Amino acid sequence: MARRIVELLRTGQPDESVTIQGWVRTKREQKGFSFIEVNDGSSMAGLQVVINQTVPGYEEAIKRLSTGASVEVSGVLVPSLGKGQRIEVKADSVAVFGEADPETYPLQKKRHSFEFLREIGHLRSRTNTLGAVFRVRNACATAIHQFFQDQGFLWVHTPVLTASDCEGAGEMFAVTSLNLKQVPMTAQKEVDYSKDFFGKPTYLTVSGQLEAEIMAMAFSNVYTFGPTFRAENSNTSRHLAEFWMVEPEMAFCDLEGDMDLAEAFLKHIFKQVMATCPEDMEFFNARIDNSVLATAENIINTEFERLTYTDAIAQLQNAGKTFEYPVEWGLDLQSEHERYLAEELFKKPTIVTDYPTEIKAFYMRLSDDEQTVRAMDILVPKIGEIIGGSQREERLDVLERRIRQQGLDPADYWWYLDLRRYGTVPHAGFGLGFERLVQFMTGMGNIRDVIPFPRAPLSVEF
Amino acid sequence: MARRIVELLRTGQPDESVTIQGWVRTKREQKGFSFIEVNDGSSMAGLQVVINQTVPGYEEAIKRLSTGASVEVSGVLVPSLGKGQRIEVKADSVAVFGEADPETYPLQKKRHSFEFLREIGHLRSRTNTLGAVFRVRNACATAIHQFFQDQGFLWVHTPVLTASDCEGAGEMFAVTSLNLKQVPMTAQKEVDYSKDFFGKPTYLTVSGQLEAEIMAMAFSNVYTFGPTFRAENSNTSRHLAEFWMVEPEMAFCDLEGDMDLAEAFLKHIFKQVMATCPEDMEFFNARIDNSVLATAENIINTEFERLTYTDAIAQLQNAGKTFEYPVEWGLDLQSEHERYLAEELFKKPTIVTDYPTEIKAFYMRLSDDEQTVRAMDILVPKIGEIIGGSQREERLDVLERRIRQQGLDPADYWWYLDLRRYGTVPHAGFGLGFERLVQFMTGMGNIRDVIPFPRAPLSVEF
Repeated sequence: MARRIVELLRTGQPDESVTIQGWVRTKREQKGFSFIEVNDGSSMAGLQVVINQTVPGYEEAIKRLSTGASVEVSGVLVPSLGKGQRIEVKADSVAVFGEADPETYPLQKKRHSFEFLREIGHLRSRTNTLGAVFRVRNACATAIHQFFQDQGFLWVHTPVLTASDCEGAGEMFAVTSLNLKQVPMTAQKEVDYSKDFFGKPTYLTVSGQLEAEIMAMAFSNVYTFGPTFRAENSNTSRHLAEFWMVEPEMAFCDLEGDMDLAEAFLKHIFKQVMATCPEDMEFFNARIDNSVLATAENIINTEFERLTYTDAIAQLQNAGKTFEYPVEWGLDLQSEHERYLAEELFKKPTIVTDYPTEIKAFYMRLSDDEQTVRAMDILVPKIGEIIGGSQREERLDVLERRIRQQGLDPADYWWYLDLRRYGTVPHAGFGLGFERLVQFMTGMGNIRDVIPFPRAPLSVEF
Repeated sequence: MARRIVELLRTGQPDESVTIQGWVRTKREQKGFSFIEVNDGSSMAGLQVVINQTVPGYEEAIKRLSTGASVEVSGVLVPSLGKGQRIEVKADSVAVFGEADPETYPLQKKRHSFEFLREIGHLRSRTNTLGAVFRVRNACATAIHQFFQDQGFLWVHTPVLTASDCEGAGEMFAVTSLNLKQVPMTAQKEVDYSKDFFGKPTYLTVSGQLEAEIMAMAFSNVYTFGPTFRAENSNTSRHLAEFWMVEPEMAFCDLEGDMDLAEAFLKHIFKQVMATCPEDMEFFNARIDNSVLATAENIINTEFERLTYTDAIAQLQNAGKTFEYPVEWGLDLQSEHERYLAEELFKKPTIVTDYPTEIKAFYMRLSDDEQTVRAMDILVPKIGEIIGGSQREERLDVLERRIRQQGLDPADYWWYLDLRRYGTVPHAGFGLGFERLVQFMTGMGNIRDVIPFPRAPLSVEF
């Protein structure tokens, strides 16, 4: 049975008989023997194989084994004389599964731009950088589940298809089984949704929060981890039309508990990824962004700064800096302001709390003076906001009033209001954009390079 | 800090000071004191609390503490005299967060039909049965991740939004940002997709398999676990428009390896759930379906039956039974046939392999005689097919021919074909409908009762 290369690199011992399977990264022919480096995706580094010309079928195999070809090698581990490798395989037999014609295979051994690699999204995971990204992505995802499961949170699957709009704020994709060439209309010249699959306008969710609140009112602590969508026409390096979001929701929890959990959560993920993917993280630090390891260190070992929005505004006004956007109590913080706080002023993750009521969603808990709500954003260097959360409004009368004030109809929120009518409790939660996290962790510049198959305006390949 | 009730029930010791938070399930008033049972969703059983009239605010609290009210209790653990409970809390203080008016709260202590509970999907998770379902669902999901992560598989997030149709078989939802009231048309009277968000017709995925194959060709072993969609107009107890699917994909793997993995996978999940949710599983066995524990036992301890489709047809023809649908080589197996094999003939999970080429998808590996493909379905009692998988066609020329034979255009599959052009390897995988698994495990009769917010024709509430 074939062994994973990452395990052999870590614990393989000379004289062990092994079989490995993978793809050729490089080949060097010498007189009487050849070296190939075989990678199976389990680690950044491949395993070096020495194939002597006495191995059966040597000539034919070496001819076919160019970069990208698939191969199975059986042999014995021996100490390696090569630089940076402890062991290598001395081959007894070599079987080629599939070739990769050097004339046409796009991934020859040279640097490719990330733009070019996006065009070959079906092959780009075979490169060092994207390989490292997706291993780290998996490690992040696993660390997230582990963090919550260890504390008894239930993973709840909130729906992708929804007839309600979480924040009352457009930008949603419509989902339909109607024939777009001939949309049925009513006598009133409206779309006749009675003919549609769900009998009413249906959208792709922008957040699972409201449904997560339902589940928290039964199980106390829950989290979602699934895809969410924005039909925002932003062709930037920071936006995706489809992205994964993590949204924990905790009953019997206030904003302080929310912040404590979010901070512990980020620390846990960074610690876990550093432990499981050390080589990949070193690679990012060496090749992509030389602050990656320092950032991880900073997240893990530093207590996050916490201050109110009001104090943050004062800090920004006294910064002695000219910002592009105005700094004034009541206006939202822009990316430049967030980055100033996290990167320059505090030089660590910074939690800003208690934002003006006017600029935040209706479900956030109103403070006694009604000027602010119990919201919190976690700002980090380079990325800006990475987590947004709040204590939720648990008082039925206040929530109804807030819904009306935002021009929404409480009747549309009957079930959300019922949660406050029957056994309401203080509760809180937050949302983390998963791709932003992976970007932050790896230093990758474009969010399209941290998700296997990015969706963006005019971009839905593979 | 509040403690989780499941932990106190398992390991709490007399004289421990504790605080618990949760919702009242039942209340019994006696002369001079009252009992309440508090549930926080961490377990089926709640924790009994004795509140003496000497506790501050006793009268007022007891008046408000009806079924569904939320409460925080601090006190001391004491041995319980009640039947079936080891310990209870003697309250020192009681704080009521929110009431649940007995006149209107729909979940009074009596049996409710599952149909009725679906109408109050925002409250039904507070019942014993749905509570148990979603704890088991979480345990299943966690066991799935654990199984794959322990073996070095990467969790890959394949896209929900897609421009390609995995199996060439309709029934997909369309996703659009066009205004349905006024769909832009071209001069040729076709929908002008150049005005749509993605610039082309876009759908909700029915499977992540093809993209998972891309990732397997870079990382060897991967799995998807995410939502998939069918616009099938089936209003049954077995179909959902949105459901979660698990799809592992293994490079360097043939059909035997695929079956071995699938069998080990099911065994692992059942074992894990029995270990983490024993009380919930006992409950299902006692209240929902008295074969639940025997089924789990059977899955865990029995070697699955394996036979070819050809042999299965012979068995069915010799069964001495009248089936509703014909049994004939070349026709697909119907649910009644599948259930006969698993329930009556073999009385255990049964893997049927090597189905006729004509009735299976183009990507399954063609046998030498071209009459069959290397497909496998795992059939289980009551549910029928729970897993469907295959070894994939890894030969470029054969795959191209098969695509053409199905009336599809190889150009639409350029990237899928590239996987065979560059470093192709034998590979295999399978798909598991996650809700079917939870149904099978819990004995729940309707698939809508094993997903928090079911989506089906005309059904998109919450």
